[in-house]
Amino acid sequence: MKNFRLTLEYDGTAYQGWQRQGAAPTVQAALEAAIAAITRAPAVVVHGAGRTDAGVHAFGQVANFHVETRLGAEELGRGLNGVLPRDIAVRECRLAADDFHARYHALSKLYRYRIVNRPVRPAIGRGYAWFVPRPLDLTAMRRAAAFFVGRHDFKAFENAGSPRRHTVRTVTAAEWREAAPGEPVFEIEADGFLRGMVRNIVGTLVAVGLGRIDPEALPAIIAGGDRRRAGPTAPPRGLFLMEVRYRQPP
Amino acid sequence: MKNFRLTLEYDGTAYQGWQRQGAAPTVQAALEAAIAAITRAPAVVVHGAGRTDAGVHAFGQVANFHVETRLGAEELGRGLNGVLPRDIAVRECRLAADDFHARYHALSKLYRYRIVNRPVRPAIGRGYAWFVPRPLDLTAMRRAAAFFVGRHDFKAFENAGSPRRHTVRTVTAAEWREAAPGEPVFEIEADGFLRGMVRNIVGTLVAVGLGRIDPEALPAIIAGGDRRRAGPTAPPRGLFLMEVRYRQPP
Repeated sequence: MKNFRLTLEYDGTAYQGWQRQGAAPTVQAALEAAIAAITRAPAVVVHGAGRTDAGVHAFGQVANFHVETRLGAEELGRGLNGVLPRDIAVRECRLAADDFHARYHALSKLYRYRIVNRPVRPAIGRGYAWFVPRPLDLTAMRRAAAFFVGRHDFKAFENAGSPRRHTVRTVTAAEWREAAPGEPVFEIEADGFLRGMVRNIVGTLVAVGLGRIDPEALPAIIAGGDRRRAGPTAPPRGLFLMEVRYRQPP
Repeated sequence: MKNFRLTLEYDGTAYQGWQRQGAAPTVQAALEAAIAAITRAPAVVVHGAGRTDAGVHAFGQVANFHVETRLGAEELGRGLNGVLPRDIAVRECRLAADDFHARYHALSKLYRYRIVNRPVRPAIGRGYAWFVPRPLDLTAMRRAAAFFVGRHDFKAFENAGSPRRHTVRTVTAAEWREAAPGEPVFEIEADGFLRGMVRNIVGTLVAVGLGRIDPEALPAIIAGGDRRRAGPTAPPRGLFLMEVRYRQPP
């Protein structure tokens, strides 16, 4: 058996997220079908580093799978790109160490969230940003974002119905920049994320930017661990899994 | 009658271009239907500054139309955004001088063309760039682009079947930059463009970047006026009408 490691780009618009769920269209299911078509090996299971939600995109998702095949990594990557739907692309396919696991070995993940902040709705790239018509106070949002950096219990930013036993994560970066005037972009890196965590943080920071939450209230909201005190969940279409980092380039 | 001036953003993917053509979906037809719905005035004709081709996008198309209405410009703009399809947005609606004509009074137009240049096809933003898998020599493309600047007869870059009597245009800028590694962007400004001119220029410059046309051959290709000596037509999805410039902000 060979263990292949994929770096994946996908447009999540048409998918019910990463994870296989019955007959629903998911990125994992599309990949597994493509691998079966190319290698003729049945029942291959693909492990993704991050289980992105419905509608969330990726530029640099990482996944691995074991398969019996004579194909080399480059051939396999090209073959997969030939049969995958156009909204999923293999950016890189390489052989990994036999025990490499995309999820368990990930040290950190980097997510990006894009907002269009102007009075008029965008017509171009509607599926790749959250449209917020009212003006955002980016200075307040930057102030609030800084409180997320560090080791915290992020229970207040976990989606209901998906509790994990361990809700402490370490955020190493949480920053807003402007890609262009009226296009704020948030980047956050952590050793792991709870279900919905990025979108709940972004929703909270936008509530700060709209003046609905005081940035100075953030430490108490984080420490309180109460989902209802944090802001709403930002829509999935603005979110991109940018990169997954590992100890060493395998 | 009031004369309104619109600044428009649209995703051209679903349209047979700007210009009304029978029952085909076009941006002009969608706008005229929206104006009729909001003002209840029948048979309003909208004049666009540039007649973008099928699949071409716009961030800053300008258009004007005369209509009998009590609505103010801001109200009308909001109303149009409420009924227009989601891939067309009015960025600005204002009253213009009675004789203002979006096409006849335009002094220059600025177009942008986006390329994704890497071995693997993109999954995100597929509708907004031309995917060129083989490496492009951007230095050669910059050298070649410079020959377009100035007053020239652009007959060699006009689509067949759409001859104009006057094919001389003045290009004031024609430059390549990299939005990111592997994402070359071309910007060209001129006092007017022939049918297909930007896409034929981009196709020619990409042929230069692939080593199929020598950049030093450009002056002769331009002067020769023979469409067959220039390169192929670049696909519409990478092209954006960015801005239309007028003598004075009306």
